[in-house]
Amino acid sequence: MAVDGDKKKLLQRLKRVEGQIRGIQRMIEEDQYCVDILIQVTAARAALDKVGLGLLEGHARGCLVQAIHEEHSDDAIAELMNILTRFVK
Amino acid sequence: MAVDGDKKKLLQRLKRVEGQIRGIQRMIEEDQYCVDILIQVTAARAALDKVGLGLLEGHARGCLVQAIHEEHSDDAIAELMNILTRFVK
Amino acid sequence: MAVDGDKKKLLQRLKRVEGQIRGIQRMIEEDQYCVDILIQVTAARAALDKVGLGLLEGHARGCLVQAIHEEHSDDAIAELMNILTRFVK
Amino acid sequence: MAVDGDKKKLLQRLKRVEGQIRGIQRMIEEDQYCVDILIQVTAARAALDKVGLGLLEGHARGCLVQAIHEEHSDDAIAELMNILTRFVK
Repeated sequence: MAVDGDKKKLLQRLKRVEGQIRGIQRMIEEDQYCVDILIQVTAARAALDKVGLGLLEGHARGCLVQAIHEEHSDDAIAELMNILTRFVK
Repeated sequence: MAVDGDKKKLLQRLKRVEGQIRGIQRMIEEDQYCVDILIQVTAARAALDKVGLGLLEGHARGCLVQAIHEEHSDDAIAELMNILTRFVK
Repeated sequence: MAVDGDKKKLLQRLKRVEGQIRGIQRMIEEDQYCVDILIQVTAARAALDKVGLGLLEGHARGCLVQAIHEEHSDDAIAELMNILTRFVK
Repeated sequence: MAVDGDKKKLLQRLKRVEGQIRGIQRMIEEDQYCVDILIQVTAARAALDKVGLGLLEGHARGCLVQAIHEEHSDDAIAELMNILTRFVK
């Protein structure tokens, strides 16, 4: 059931995050200025948040709507809240 | 001046985050359950937060202490607050 | 349609957050140690996050399930994602 | 040593947050639409984040600079990182 048509978009975003993580390693190896490195860490984290929100949206449009139509809404919402609680931190 | 002796630890953590990001791509390609993928995204983000905090600590112990000793504390703290504001979001 | 039976629980939590906010004002007026004040700010924010998650859960169990049953799932999920994006920041 | 001249600004902000929290209680009592309430919760939390950052800045400009001048930088930075770790969550 998972992540449907936006799969390609999510994979592209993750490829980009992977590149950002590698860039951060290079910056550390080259002893670049720590504040500049931190800005890149913040950018990578924001990109990862977007991936998470994209996955949540795919989950809501797919699994959640289906579960509610099949009258499993209690379990589906408990699971959604569980993952949201982790995601919000 | 950048990230000092913990450099190796930070690089190891980033290698691990890179592996997590690749693992998430694989999970999406294999259409694994979206909630399981989200849990991994949350874990990767938490790992990235730790890298950010490690960099902040290195920055505080290195550049910040030096700037304060050299009486540039105003600029150094303005810069610290600027990056903290982004990092806290 | 709003927040249903957990209304009382949410109001109690908010009363407690209000007390925390007043406590923080008192700490500042009394020039208490800034780190101790910050710990209270962090606690109040965590309490507010719980209120937000409680509201989200009420929304999902109420409005969202109803909208999906009435076949308005697209709009309902777009609205959910909109609010989640703000909430996650 | 606490929060210095910005004390008044911080207290004003906290008064405003207190008003926001009371407003949210009223919205819940009046059964207003949950998404609208959530938007207010998000706004109150952002306001609280600003208070936290203001306190951090006061702490850095006051206690931290003093500690570093008095050669207690190790303890002072350990304490700063401890509170930052909580604050970033």
